[in-house]
This record gives sequence, structure tokens and C-alpha cells, in this order.
Amino acid sequence: MSHSPKGPLDGITIVDLTHVLAGPYCSMILSDLGAKVIKVEMPGIGDDTRHFPPFRDGHSAYFATINRDKQSIALNLKQDDDRAIFDKILTRADVVMENYRPGVMERLGYGWEDLHARFPRIIYGAVSGFGHTGPDALKPAYDMVVQARGGVMSITGEKNREPVRVGASVGDIVAGMFLGHGLLAALYHRERTGEGQKVDVAMLDSQLAILEHAVAISNETGVAPGPSGARHPSIAPFETFHAEDGLFVIACGNDALFQRLCTELGKPKLAKRDEFRSNLDRCQNVMQLRRRIELITLDHPVSYWLEKLTAAGIPCAPIQNVAQVMQDPQILARNMVLDLPAPDGGTFKAAGNPIKMSAMADHNDHAAAPLLDEHRQDILNWLEA
Amino acid sequence: MSHSPKGPLDGITIVDLTHVLAGPYCSMILSDLGAKVIKVEMPGIGDDTRHFPPFRDGHSAYFATINRDKQSIALNLKQDDDRAIFDKILTRADVVMENYRPGVMERLGYGWEDLHARFPRIIYGAVSGFGHTGPDALKPAYDMVVQARGGVMSITGEKNREPVRVGASVGDIVAGMFLGHGLLAALYHRERTGEGQKVDVAMLDSQLAILEHAVAISNETGVAPGPSGARHPSIAPFETFHAEDGLFVIACGNDALFQRLCTELGKPKLAKRDEFRSNLDRCQNVMQLRRRIELITLDHPVSYWLEKLTAAGIPCAPIQNVAQVMQDPQILARNMVLDLPAPDGGTFKAAGNPIKMSAMADHNDHAAAPLLDEHRQDILNWLEA
Repeated sequence: MSHSPKGPLDGITIVDLTHVLAGPYCSMILSDLGAKVIKVEMPGIGDDTRHFPPFRDGHSAYFATINRDKQSIALNLKQDDDRAIFDKILTRADVVMENYRPGVMERLGYGWEDLHARFPRIIYGAVSGFGHTGPDALKPAYDMVVQARGGVMSITGEKNREPVRVGASVGDIVAGMFLGHGLLAALYHRERTGEGQKVDVAMLDSQLAILEHAVAISNETGVAPGPSGARHPSIAPFETFHAEDGLFVIACGNDALFQRLCTELGKPKLAKRDEFRSNLDRCQNVMQLRRRIELITLDHPVSYWLEKLTAAGIPCAPIQNVAQVMQDPQILARNMVLDLPAPDGGTFKAAGNPIKMSAMADHNDHAAAPLLDEHRQDILNWLEA
Repeated sequence: MSHSPKGPLDGITIVDLTHVLAGPYCSMILSDLGAKVIKVEMPGIGDDTRHFPPFRDGHSAYFATINRDKQSIALNLKQDDDRAIFDKILTRADVVMENYRPGVMERLGYGWEDLHARFPRIIYGAVSGFGHTGPDALKPAYDMVVQARGGVMSITGEKNREPVRVGASVGDIVAGMFLGHGLLAALYHRERTGEGQKVDVAMLDSQLAILEHAVAISNETGVAPGPSGARHPSIAPFETFHAEDGLFVIACGNDALFQRLCTELGKPKLAKRDEFRSNLDRCQNVMQLRRRIELITLDHPVSYWLEKLTAAGIPCAPIQNVAQVMQDPQILARNMVLDLPAPDGGTFKAAGNPIKMSAMADHNDHAAAPLLDEHRQDILNWLEA
């Protein structure tokens, strides 16, 4: 049986009908905060990501990490026996989550209106490609669809080359996180009013919501920004630079940091030049600025610059690959790498919970992601208890 | 005076000492959910982003969008008069947020331990580059620093070219969103226990937390993944394709969708070939798959394919720039473009709130971001009320 740590959501039961990433990512966060998550899956098939590589002994490592600590029951909501079980689960539910296209839950008799009439305290969370309203509500979507239509691809990549996908699935993940905010706010609201409500989050909306500076630039200049490679479009210097043995990042968000950088580079007068005096000046002369800095950084290796600039309080960083991140001493010190039990007796590594709360133990004792229908009997017993 | 809509966080007061993006983005979400946000800024300077382009009449459009509806008071927490005001504000606070480096609040006498002793119900939220524990806790960071060190840059961009920055500031925004989850969970916890707590979120941790498939690939294969251009590394077809007049995206997350795609392309037998039978097969033969699909998509314009594939229920999308997204009928139907009052009498456009809740009006009647210290007298009056 999955076990939850003592967390702020202790005692909360989430009935999770979602699959793939946006919904399961949301319920993973809430599980990490102490909620009990019952994953309701289609018999025989289960969550699509059970079939996503990489696999170990036939088990998806991808599925394993996102679905840790959850319980699984396989139910066909078109069959009476399974519906009877689902109805019983609903009597214990605080939150019901789904990521079907609008109308699917209604046709099953479990739409928001029906559920709310029967269980006024239930909170209903829906995450879908385009939301439950608007002309495109019924269109299907995946991460890549909303990364493209939602604008983030148009500002990611190199100038004058084809746009690229953001390597992380931000189309799904950010939507899952907005749903998480909505569900937590709804729990708080219910605690004060007794009233459940519906939260409706669209992946497309969520993409626009993260485009802060691009929205400002597009509207103020009348020109939609394109990709700007490895630099921030509105701050300088805020980009990658070549050192003797590779690339690293320097990020100066204000004039004082830039002045300090020039001193560390041995060029204090650089900060006094008209071209580089303010952030706006530096943005307008960013190519010249880059070359002047790189002429100096090329003389020493990355490690030299990281040490020197860090000692002077200037934000800088190596560009790490994922394996390096997983071994980063700071990441390890923060309990950010989990060891999840794997079916071969080993462990799947997973990213930990980044929400550190003083009233919640930050443990590393998670249960494995469930096999399909693994907890049917446990759940039936719990319903009778 | 700023005004909040009726939302789940009505009555909650957030004292927000954060600046730049991670913290202000978090308090923007909570403000959109009904909280009152009092922005405490350094006299004379204020939030760094007041000085970020683009500007209109000297006012930053960037600052304007992220800080809508908030109130501003300028306080120097090293001066007694201002400390006295701050102490009074604390008596009304539910949440205190800060993004200083660890130790700064302690030296001011407002660290978590001190605040908790004086105000046991206060919830304390900290977002910092590397968190309040670990060897690098004191290092400075910006978005780009954690995009580089946290791994997302290593998987974003084109193969065999330099890594690129994710165009949206996910280093800040995702951290702000994990803090938002923590604060909302802490509010819920307080409602049930009366106890406040500290939430500590690191931007670096938050980056690792969004690398789902890259973590799985890195650990299972022993090889850290590199950038994969415009395609998903573990699903195929899930990438951009050339049509007659430009690029668009097709995303098939399961075999059924791929079979349907082949039918729509007029090549139903493609789905039956050994190389393309399962998702794993398709990933292993992804270059061949891409060429076979593109040979067909090149014959017609993007609009033709979007219409045809959408009618067949296949997820696909145009690649829109930010200006196009802001005019997308679905985005407009979802009230995702806000008109914020601008100092020149016009409006700043901003992305709206993607969290749609049935018990909260989804309005478009926001107050402008505050001038520095704009609400000093209002806040003083409120403290006496």
C-alpha cells in the first residue's frame, strides 16, 4: 500500500482520472504534499505513459517517476460493476481530476454538474488542451501542440533558424501547476465555506501565461520577438560566453553587478562607456558587449571564471547536463534526487519535491508507482472500512 | 486603491518583499486568486524590473504586467520609522514573502524564527537561487543561471549546436509556481491547525523538478540526453514538419493516433511497417519517419493540413508568434488577454489568469501596477482602521 508522509494535505483523497503528464504531474505534487492519490485507469491499457520509453524489465521509468506513491485501480466507467465501485470511491473523494476532452465526463454521468449535485464538497479539476469553453474546446492537444500554438517555440532557438521545442515538457507541466494552484485554492475555499468548485485549466492559456517579457515586447514595440539564442532579450549581459574550455553563463540583472563584473574582468572602465552605462544601453549594444567580454573570458577555463566571479558575488553558472545535475552537491544536499523502488529490486532515480516546508518531513521513502490495478483489493477493503 | 475580485483568497494579505520575477510572479498568481498584495520596496529604487525595457512614458511594461493589482509602499527596513510601519503591517499579514539571499532577513530581525515567535500564524515564503540549505545557499542567481546549471539548456536547442535559453523565464517562473503551491498548502494547513510555517523553494531544485523524461533517460541509459531540436525525445511523431508554406506541428502520443495520421496522409500501410509499429519503433526510426511524412506534407499549405488533421482528431498546431497568440480566438474567448491601465491613459496588454474557477468571476477589471510608494497613505490609513 502506498504511504504518504505527514504533509499539509494529509487526509485529502484525490481521485485521479488523468493520464500522460499534465494531470499526473499535478497529482504528483499534491501527493508529495501528503494527499492520497487513487489513479483510476482503463482496464488492460492504463496510462499511456506506461508505454513510453525508457523501459526496465518492461516497466517505463518515465511512468515510474511521475506516479510514485499513487494507488491504481482499473475501472471501465461504462460498466455497471465498475461504476458502482467508482461511486463508492467518490463518497470518499475530496478532489476529482480528469483530462478528457470536454463532454466525456458528462456522457459518463460524472460531469461537474452531476458530481456537484451529488457531492457538493467535491472539488473538480479539469486540465485540457484548450479548456472547457471557447471555439476550440474540443480539439485534442499534447505538449508540443501548445508549445507551438502558445508562442514559446517562437522565442526559443537561434536567430534565423527553425524554432525548437523547449526540452522540458512545459506545455504539460505548467498547465499541471496552474491546476495545482487552483485545486489548493479550492481546498482552502472549501475549508472556509464548505463549498466545492470546478477548476478549468487549459494548456494553451497556460503557455501564454508564462511569456512575461515576450508579451510586453510584442505589445509595446508592435513586433513579436523571435528567438534570441542563449541570451535574455531584455537584460545584458545575461547569456552564455566562451571560456578557454567551453561555455558558461554570466547574468547581471542590474548596473551594480555589471560594474563588479567589469572589475573582475580587469576592465573597470568598460562600465563607464556610454554604450554600456545602463541596461538599455547594454541591450542596444549587446553584440559589442559580448565580444568585449569574450575576448577576456577566452583566456581562462570555465572553472577559473566560476570561482572568480562567484567570489565577487556575480551570478554565473556552468551549463550542466542532466547527469551532472543529478550529482550536483547542492541538489543532493537538498534531497532532490529520489530513489524509487524498481521492479528489478533496484531503484529508479527521480527528481524530488522542490517544496520544502518546515512542518513537513522532507523524506526519501517513497513507494513505487503502481502496477495497473495493483491496489484494487486494498481500495475495496478501504471502502468497506 | 487596488481592488481584488471575489476569489478563494479573499481576505488574505500578502506582504511581498520579493523583486524581479520568481517572487512577483508567485504573488501575481495569488493576487489573481483574490489575495491583497502589499509590495514592500526599497525607497528610491524599487523593484529592479521597474528599470527593465520596454518602457512607455518611462514606465516598464514588464513591471506593469507582473505587478498588476498590487499596492506599493517604500520602506527601508534598516530605519526605525519604517521598521515601525513594517511591524504594524506584519500584525495584519497572513503571508510574508522574500527572495533575498539566506541570512538577510535574519540580520534585519525579520527571519523566520523571529517572525514565527512573534506571529505564529504567519506563513513565510522564501524563493532563492539555491535554497536556504546546502553548500551553495549563499550564491546569487538569476533565471539564466539556473537554466544553465539546472539542465534545461542542455536539452534545448539543435543537435551539435550550442545550447539555447528557453525563451520564457522558466528558471524564475517555475520556482515561483512551486512557492505558490507551498504557500497555498500552508494556508490550508493553517486553517486546520492554526500553525504557520516556512516554505523554502530553490530555483535550482525547481529546474530539476521539471526534467521528467530527461531524468528517466539519463538514469536508464547512462547517457545524459542532448538537445533534440524540435522533436520530443521519447515520442514519435511529435515534432515540426514542413508544409508547402511553412512549419507546423503534429503530435501523436499513441499508436491509434499514428494509424489515423497515416490514413489522413493517404498512406495507411505506413502504420503497419515494422519500423513504425510501436512508439519505440518509431523513435528508433524517427529520421526515416520524418522524411516519409514530410514528402507528403510538403504538397499542401499549413492551413490545409491543420484543417484535415484536426477534423480527424489528430493533435496538430501552427507555430504562432506572440502577437498571433494574443489574437488567437481561443485565447480571447478564455479572457486570457488583459487590458491594464497605463500611465498614458492607454492600456498595457498582459496575459490573464489561466486558473478558471467556478466560484470566482473571471473579470478583466484590474488595477494598474503601483508607482513606487503609491499606497503609503492608504496603507497607513488601513493600519489605523
